Amino acid sequence: MTRANTLTGTRLSSGVSAGGRPRGSRAGGTVARILDGAVELLNREGGDAVTTNHIAAHLGMSPGNLYYHFRNREEIVRAIFPRIVEEGLRATDASAPTLTAREFGDRHVQGIHTLWRHRFFFRDLNQLLARDEELAAAYRDYHRGLRAQYRAIFERLIAQGSMRAPRPAADLDRVVTDSIVVWFAWIPYLTSLRPRPDIAPRDVVEGALHSFLVVAPLLESGFASESRAVIEEHGRPRHRRP
Amino acid sequence: MTRANTLTGTRLSSGVSAGGRPRGSRAGGTVARILDGAVELLNREGGDAVTTNHIAAHLGMSPGNLYYHFRNREEIVRAIFPRIVEEGLRATDASAPTLTAREFGDRHVQGIHTLWRHRFFFRDLNQLLARDEELAAAYRDYHRGLRAQYRAIFERLIAQGSMRAPRPAADLDRVVTDSIVVWFAWIPYLTSLRPRPDIAPRDVVEGALHSFLVVAPLLESGFASESRAVIEEHGRPRHRRP
Repeated sequence: MTRANTLTGTRLSSGVSAGGRPRGSRAGGTVARILDGAVELLNREGGDAVTTNHIAAHLGMSPGNLYYHFRNREEIVRAIFPRIVEEGLRATDASAPTLTAREFGDRHVQGIHTLWRHRFFFRDLNQLLARDEELAAAYRDYHRGLRAQYRAIFERLIAQGSMRAPRPAADLDRVVTDSIVVWFAWIPYLTSLRPRPDIAPRDVVEGALHSFLVVAPLLESGFASESRAVIEEHGRPRHRRP
Repeated sequence: MTRANTLTGTRLSSGVSAGGRPRGSRAGGTVARILDGAVELLNREGGDAVTTNHIAAHLGMSPGNLYYHFRNREEIVRAIFPRIVEEGLRATDASAPTLTAREFGDRHVQGIHTLWRHRFFFRDLNQLLARDEELAAAYRDYHRGLRAQYRAIFERLIAQGSMRAPRPAADLDRVVTDSIVVWFAWIPYLTSLRPRPDIAPRDVVEGALHSFLVVAPLLESGFASESRAVIEEHGRPRHRRP
């Protein structure tokens, strides 16, 4: 799992506060441990069949102790979801006055990390949403926010001359959608094609490159090359096996 | 269901031979009826929970009679699958010496018809493949054929001067993949965003437009406009309500 560590071993897997509880408290620590353990199990092959009992056993915790914090699997997934939201909205934040080519490439790399860390979520998305209306509603809010911010990034790139505006103007929304669709669909797409879903970090780098290529033809050529280089840099062996 | 008929009322929903059996025979007729009824039920909301008993009841047929032809739901889906394959390979056939802009647009429209007619398949893809290894293997063959033919179409367009070759050359495969990913992911994407999955023919026309836009920036501009007009024509009200 050396390669997996490369993509998971950054700030979020170790430093995030879980479920909004204070990180330092004992309860907060247990909750974070449950969520981290759950993500680990859910991400494995067959993870869609993982139950709260599996998670408790995996953590060497009594089912009763886990039940004290989460009554069912849906509550656990619902508590993991804010991590995905936070990462997605940070990667598409467009509040800075300009966006360099390196930063634009970096946003794609951040997207890679999210896909990899929470690949169960993207793999099982529609089943998870069908099981839990509260999650489905939260997901729609998230998607709306993500779209709006991604569009704002493109508008910024157009305003600063790094991207040409699509014609007709309604195509800007379509390009935003295409980038998002490729990003969201990448893990399910790979899953459909493999006898065993042995998805590796290199695969998600390819996914970021595919998502980038949807918008690349609209970018100013120097800007496009520089952004692309940042993404490709993350697919190189020295990044995968430090 | 007036709008549904517009997209389903062409040759395949009425004229296809089912499961390879002779269309004129009594057994072939029953098989075709079972497959048509199954597609109808599977396409509905909650269709992933449809059983062989539901299908028999829907057709006013005894479970024993259905069982004579298909032992389980997997066998039914496996018998529907060749229809999807046949349509996909026909829509991406590149054996003609040239491809006009109208024809290229028409290929996208054919893709729309397939998505719409068999939307259950694209909606539930990974669950269906996880349940049935034989289907999963057949699906991988289909995907390989589809990719190869789609790439051949792009090579033809490049050779006849209707499309510029992407740089680096490896990006041609990525553009092919992006078009295919957007096409395959469109129905699941819409499903994830709707409180009720009320997918309409207009939505799949938008999907074809989104898939087209992945390659559009690489097309010669006159060719692009003409292809696009063919797709948009199918989204107009007179096409939806004849």
